Formats: sequence, structure tokens, C-alpha cells
Amino acid sequence: MSSTSAATILTVSELAEMVGGTAQGQLDRPLRGCADLERATHEQLSFLSNIKYRRHLETTQAGCVILAQEHASRLQRTDLTLIIAKDPYYAFRQAVVKLHGFRQHACVGVSPQASVHPTAQIGRNVNIHPFAVIGENVVIGADSEIYSQVTIMPNTRLGRECIIYPGATVYDDCVIGERVIIHSGAVIGSDGYGYATHGGVHHKIPQVGNVVLEDDVEIGATTVVMRAALESTVIGKGSKLDCGVVIGHNCRIGPHNLLVAQVGIAGSVSTGKYVVMGGQVGVAGHLHIADLTRFAGQSGVVADVVQPGLEHGGSPAMEVRHARRVYLQFVQLPEMAKRIKELENKLKQLEKAT
Amino acid sequence: MSSTSAATILTVSELAEMVGGTAQGQLDRPLRGCADLERATHEQLSFLSNIKYRRHLETTQAGCVILAQEHASRLQRTDLTLIIAKDPYYAFRQAVVKLHGFRQHACVGVSPQASVHPTAQIGRNVNIHPFAVIGENVVIGADSEIYSQVTIMPNTRLGRECIIYPGATVYDDCVIGERVIIHSGAVIGSDGYGYATHGGVHHKIPQVGNVVLEDDVEIGATTVVMRAALESTVIGKGSKLDCGVVIGHNCRIGPHNLLVAQVGIAGSVSTGKYVVMGGQVGVAGHLHIADLTRFAGQSGVVADVVQPGLEHGGSPAMEVRHARRVYLQFVQLPEMAKRIKELENKLKQLEKAT
Amino acid sequence: MSSTSAATILTVSELAEMVGGTAQGQLDRPLRGCADLERATHEQLSFLSNIKYRRHLETTQAGCVILAQEHASRLQRTDLTLIIAKDPYYAFRQAVVKLHGFRQHACVGVSPQASVHPTAQIGRNVNIHPFAVIGENVVIGADSEIYSQVTIMPNTRLGRECIIYPGATVYDDCVIGERVIIHSGAVIGSDGYGYATHGGVHHKIPQVGNVVLEDDVEIGATTVVMRAALESTVIGKGSKLDCGVVIGHNCRIGPHNLLVAQVGIAGSVSTGKYVVMGGQVGVAGHLHIADLTRFAGQSGVVADVVQPGLEHGGSPAMEVRHARRVYLQFVQLPEMAKRIKELENKLKQLEKAT
Repeated sequence: MSSTSAATILTVSELAEMVGGTAQGQLDRPLRGCADLERATHEQLSFLSNIKYRRHLETTQAGCVILAQEHASRLQRTDLTLIIAKDPYYAFRQAVVKLHGFRQHACVGVSPQASVHPTAQIGRNVNIHPFAVIGENVVIGADSEIYSQVTIMPNTRLGRECIIYPGATVYDDCVIGERVIIHSGAVIGSDGYGYATHGGVHHKIPQVGNVVLEDDVEIGATTVVMRAALESTVIGKGSKLDCGVVIGHNCRIGPHNLLVAQVGIAGSVSTGKYVVMGGQVGVAGHLHIADLTRFAGQSGVVADVVQPGLEHGGSPAMEVRHARRVYLQFVQLPEMAKRIKELENKLKQLEKAT
Repeated sequence: MSSTSAATILTVSELAEMVGGTAQGQLDRPLRGCADLERATHEQLSFLSNIKYRRHLETTQAGCVILAQEHASRLQRTDLTLIIAKDPYYAFRQAVVKLHGFRQHACVGVSPQASVHPTAQIGRNVNIHPFAVIGENVVIGADSEIYSQVTIMPNTRLGRECIIYPGATVYDDCVIGERVIIHSGAVIGSDGYGYATHGGVHHKIPQVGNVVLEDDVEIGATTVVMRAALESTVIGKGSKLDCGVVIGHNCRIGPHNLLVAQVGIAGSVSTGKYVVMGGQVGVAGHLHIADLTRFAGQSGVVADVVQPGLEHGGSPAMEVRHARRVYLQFVQLPEMAKRIKELENKLKQLEKAT
Repeated sequence: MSSTSAATILTVSELAEMVGGTAQGQLDRPLRGCADLERATHEQLSFLSNIKYRRHLETTQAGCVILAQEHASRLQRTDLTLIIAKDPYYAFRQAVVKLHGFRQHACVGVSPQASVHPTAQIGRNVNIHPFAVIGENVVIGADSEIYSQVTIMPNTRLGRECIIYPGATVYDDCVIGERVIIHSGAVIGSDGYGYATHGGVHHKIPQVGNVVLEDDVEIGATTVVMRAALESTVIGKGSKLDCGVVIGHNCRIGPHNLLVAQVGIAGSVSTGKYVVMGGQVGVAGHLHIADLTRFAGQSGVVADVVQPGLEHGGSPAMEVRHARRVYLQFVQLPEMAKRIKELENKLKQLEKAT
């Protein structure tokens, strides 16, 4: 747990009320922070949401545990103070916000060591750290944080309450919504991968579009969203991209997507809302992925997904019930080969016999 | 479309002449920029090269469309102004260059906020933006752009007309050709992954080689080209690396290769000319890949490719005609298992009968 | 070979003694540097460790070659000067260290162009290059190198003799051991990918943990190690991460692991000691990987590995002897389908006949 967090102290009953749960046990016990079941002390709050860790419930030293009714009911020990919640993971999230809060940003104002173009419009309460570069005609909304080593190239506009961490780059002409978070090393708006091969030479096509990150998008460290060739590459409202993701030019990622680390999406792909892609998923170009589709990690997506709400997996990606049956046989291929050999031998014998 | 582009206005016939195409329809119609078929207005030029979008031809509002004769002939509507070209994608690229052009770089000269070592040699008309760092004995060719947050470490030499975007790093002793473009967050010349494991410890091997990027290479955002252990890691003339690519030490990538996003090439691999690798392809170490080989996305390459000009796919990568037949059966494995079960049952019956 | 290295000259017998090998041939021959077998000149040392390159032994111009006794014995030519070593790769590594040494860092002290918070504690002989940013309460151990464009956020502590290359970022509250090397564009301690989805919105969970990099860890360019939600993401002593790797929050990577380029490890994974993962391996969340496990490149790991010391491969990952048999059949699937078809035909005939 970080040295700077865990400042607030709240009692079990105060927390239960805040997170909309029901407390039982020692209601006035003070809690000073959060930890996982294995490491929590009697002054710390913990939680159970992944069933894999249920066994730790019987041994945890936590001062209080947030969990679902079903797990509370099955608990053998009786000395554990509990907060029972309908959505324990979200309740725990609320508690972490109350007890720890989000990162505090140093109030540096516009550092004299930053380079801010005179035409840039900087909103109220914006912090711009040393060695950040704000280009011509850039607009930065109020209450935003621009960390050191960030470059925002000309004509890009950021909404309110954005956080751009050290070393991220936003190219020119991009449009960033409100409350967008961009982590270190991420690159927004670099040129799309577009070449016209002619006479043995790959001729670069000017990428004159831009990137639009809608409100509440979060972009992980070193993730790249490439600018469109002509229009906009769009990341929809509330979508969260993990680290090491690459989004090709002209993509239109829908709202509330979750793209886990190292996902790669080729150019001109569109996704619906609430699409989830596991780590290292690859999506070929020019496809459309329906609402609420989920891809297992390492899926290789080579065809449109038309029916919404299904899980897919494998490479090539298949609907998951089919994929499970395919992979069940796949790992038994040596056995299958043996059975075919046996069939051939038996058949030969039978043929001889008849 | 970005706010800073689309300055030039040209008529249909002017453009047709510039791109070597044949215009038909309203030849004097003025065009102010480019857009895709779905979004283009009557003042914009569009194009058709991917057959997937042909249906948009019948409904597009574009002022003019560049396309191949075969698509023009099949068009049902007669009101569309056209430029017919042999290579419509290249013709469109030429038109984008004429109507939009490439990114304009601010004429900042050598910023007093940059750190330029007194021994560095900076060519004519070079822009070095604030907070760039140019190391000892670095040479930068004329007309190059060094953006903010870039570090060029000692003894590295860049040719003319290079563009190094914000936050890219080039380590020491590297040799960069002319017209090389390096996007944000890319890293050229970091230490190769070399350790000698001895006595339970992984001992770092000094990586005393360098990286050579030949003329007209483009390196995508966050792509890494690792320096050689002893000699040079080379990216051949005109090769284009997309974002998130990793090239291991001692590799010799041939000329005019296209390596799409998140390709990973292990150490000491060599490739011929015009090799194409789709997204997320992985190549094992010490292999050679013949000229004009193409790998489908997510291919896992574990053997030399000796015969030039073939397409490969799958993991492990196979010649594509074979790969297609393998994957055709792969997705039918549950059916195959069922057929084997039926064969076994029938055979059992037959054995009983005879 | 880089222009700045190869300063030291040593004779064959001096080198043999230094690396603990046995010299034969021209013992007083001076050697000025190292090169591979194909390119080495008579003044250069070379080596053979990968059997793939043995043929070059008969033609190399190298002044001396380090190799194992078995290869020396099979050599046909008699004019080659040799150093015979038990572990030739490690012996060669020792020779590279002697003849070339590691990168020399410019002695810049604490640059007046760096931004160092007055509360930061900077050890003796630390170099902090221009435009580096050292945050509040940061501690930097003696003899460390902090290159340009690096940001170290508040409360992070670095041990002695660390090297942080240009453009790397370390977030707040992290703990970095001694002799840790972090390459350009790497990001240590960015927020873990943690959201609680509630009411159709992905609510960010504050990531209040940190990252601990133990002694002698090396982190490749653009690699990301995400901070823990509550506790610490740990990279164990002596582990080496290649470029483009992503480590999810709460992971506990054991000591002396080797994670090759573009490996992705989801959250809460733990690994034992001496685990090796090839390029592009993906590991699903909450798994444990036993000591000395090795994964082939592109493996997809979806289950705990309980038994130590085994090699695994494939997606899904299987013990390698099984995986080899599976993939042997996999690439023969079209043939297998044909055999099944034939069996069905023959059986039909037999059924007719009986």
C-alpha cells in the first residue's frame, strides 16, 4: 500500500452506509485503509469478489470484509465483521475511494519551466508541470493536469478535468473530451499506417484526419491511437484501454468498451457498445463487432460479429461454445490420430476377412 | 478531417491530370479536400479501392470519386463525376498530397529551450523544439525536424529531412538515413536482450553494436528497434514499421518491408525485400525470411522461409494454401470427432456381425 | 560495432586467463574488440555458442574464437587461435566486458536544466540530465544515472547504481532496488487496469498500491509494470524484462525470470524463480507458474502450472511433449480428414457387402 494514501479513518457502520451495504459485527471498529484478504490487518477493510479467494475468508485478519450475502451465509467463523453488499466489488470500490481517494496532484500552476504557446488557451486551475509543451492554438479545459514531458501539438483541444501523465504525446488537431486520463508513454494521433505501393515504393499517404477521445475515456501507458487518414479515429465515451494497446486509423470504438493489454485493432474497425476484448486479442481491418461482444484473450478476429452479446474465443475466433468444443478436440489430437490408425487397421482386417 | 488541412482548391480536370487519370462528368467542379465515400460532400474528392465499400458508390454525395475502370463501368447512377485511374489507391494518394499535403512543421529554429551539445553538428533549416536533447558529437542533417522531448544520444548521425516526433529516443552511435520518420514514443537503439546465465545469475552482455535505419524508413509510435550485440541491427531502405513493433538485436530487415502493428521479431532474424507481416506476427530467432513473403496476422514463424513470394499463415506458420485447409478442418474438429465415434460404433457392429 | 567502444587491447593469453579458458594458437596476438564469426577481422575476438553458426568456424578471419572443447575438437583447420571454455557464452560475455565495457555515462552532475524538488534526496555521484524531473520526497541512490526526459514522481525511492534511460517514467510511491536498469519509454507504476462496472459505467478503482523492482532488474524499452490496486506489484531480484512487455497489477514475478519481448501477464499472477517466457506469451489472470517453467513464444497460458521445471507451448499452453504431438497432428489435419472420409467410404462398402 502506498505511503501517501490511507489518510481517512471511518467506522464500519459509516462505511456500510456510504457503500449502501449492511454491516454486522463490530460496527464502531475504525478502518484506516484497504488491503487484500491475505494481508489486511484489524484496522483494514478487505473484500471478496473473486470466488478463487474464498478460502482466505476463514483466516483473514481484516477488520472488516465486504462480500455478497451468499458468501456471508457460508462463512464458518463468527468473529469476522462484515459489510454485505449486492455488488461487493463496486461497494469495495466506493470504500477505496472514501478511505484512500484518487492520486493528489501537486498544485504547480503553469510552471515557468513549461513551454506554453502564447495562443494556447489554458483553463482555470490547470497545472502544467515543468518541460511540458503546449502548442499553438491548443485549448486545455479547466481543472486539468498536464504532467512533465507531455507534448500537446497544435490545435488539439482538451476538455475539463483531464489528466495527462508524464511523457504522453497528443498530436495535432485532436479532440479530447472531459475527464479523460492518458497514462505515460501513450501516443494519441500519430500517423495512421497508410501507404500506396507504386513502382516498388511505399508512398506515404498524408494522414489528415484526427483522433477523438470522448468523455471519461482512459488510455493506458504506451497505448497508441492512430489518427484517421481522412476523418476521425474515435474512442467512445467511457471506454477504457489498457496498456500496450494499438488502435489503427479510422477505427470507431464504441462507448464503454474494455480493451485489455496489448489488444491490436487494425484500421477501419468499428465496435458497438460494451464490447470487451481480453489481452492480446487481434482484430483484422474493416470489421464490425456487435454490441456486448466479448473476446477471450489472444482471440484472432477475422470476420464481422453480427449477433450481439456473445462470447468468442480462439484464433480464428469462434463463438465460445463452439470454440470450447474445438479446443477440447484440439488438445486430444494425438489420441484422435491413434483412433483413426486403429480404425484403419481394424478395417483392413475386416476387409481381409470378408 | 483536421482543422488545419484542405487549403488548396483544384478542379476535377486539374486533379485528373496531376494523378494521371481520366476525368468524366463535371470537369470544372472545384474540390477542396478528401473524404471517404460515406462522408464526402459535393466539394470533396473520394475514392474506391476496397471492394467492400462499393455499395457506397451509388449513394455517395462526393464531388468526384477516383476509381478503377471496372468499377466505373458497373456504376448504375450517371450523375457521379469520376476520375478513372489504373492504380486508384495511388492516384488518390497523389490527390491527398495535392489537396492536403503533409503536416506543416513550425519554424522554430534551434529553440533556446533545447539542450544541444556544443560538439553537435546541426544542418541548415533544422528545427529543434523545446526540451529536445542533442548529445555529444551528434550530427543532424539539413531540413530535419526534432520535436520536443526527443533525446538523441551521443555520436548518432541523422541524414537530411528526418522527422523525429515528440518523446522518441535514439540511443548512442546509431546511423539514421535521409527522410526517416520516427513517431512519438519509439525507441531506437536500446540495449538488445542479451544475458549469459552463469551461476544462477543472468549476466548482462554489453550491447556494443548499433542500429542503422536506412533512407525512407518510417517507425511507428512506441516501436522499438534494439541495438546489436556487436554489429548493427538494420532496417532496410523504404521499410515501414507500424506501432508497437519490437525488432530484436542483430536483425537485418530488408528493404521495402511492411511490418504491421505489434509484430515481434526475435534476435538475429534476416528478411529479404518486400516482406509483409500482418499485425501481431511473431518470428523466432535466427531465421531467414525470403523476398516477397507475406505473413497473415498472428502468424507464429518458427522456421526459415526459403521460397520467395508466398503467403503464410497460422501458428505455427504454414504456406497459406495448406494453412487454409488446416484451419478449415480445425474449426470442424467437433464434427470430426463425432464422425470417428460413429466409425468406431459401426465397425464394432460389423465386427460383431462377421 | 559502435564507434565509441573497443578501447582496450588485450592479448589472447591475457583474455584466456581473465575468462578462465585455455588458449591455443598465437597466444600473444593482440585483440581490440569483438565481432561475430562472419565479420571479425584478425584483430577481433569472436565466439561460437549457437551450433547453427558452426560452419562459419572454418572460414572466419577472427583473430581468436572462444568455443567449447567439443567444437574445437571437430575443427578441420589448424590455423585458428582458440580459447576453449566450459561455458563459452559466459566466457565471451566476460571478454566483451573486458574489451568493450558497458556504456559510459557523461559526467553531468545535477544539470541546472533538470527540475529537482527541494525535498528530493540525491546520492553522491548521481548524474541528472537536462529536463529530467525529480518529484517531492524522491530518493535517488548514489552513482545512479537519470537521463533526460525522465520523470520520477513523488515518494519513489531508487537504490544505488540505477540507470534510467531517456523518456522512462516512474510513478509515485514505487521502490526501485540497486543496479536496476530501466530503458527508454518504459513506464513503472502506472495505474492498474481496475474498474467496477455498475449501472452501465466502468468506475475507476483508485490504484493505491505501488511497484517494487528488486535489485538487478532490467526493464526493456516501452515495457509497462502497472502498480497494484492495494499492495505491490513485484518484479523479483535479477529478473530481466525485454521490450514491449506488460505486467498487470498485483503480479508477483519471482527472481531471475526472463520475460521476452511483448509478453503480457494479466493481473494477480505469481511466478516462481527462473521462469522463462518466450516472445508474445500471454498469461491469464490469477494464475501461479511454478519455478523453472519455460513457455515457448506465443503460448497462451490459461491454467496454473504446478509442476516445476517443465517446458510448455501452444495456445492453450500444454506441456511441451504433449504440445509437440498435438501440433504434429494439427498441421496434418487435411490428411486426417481425408483418411476419415476414406474410412467412411470403405465402411459403407463393407456394410453393403455384408
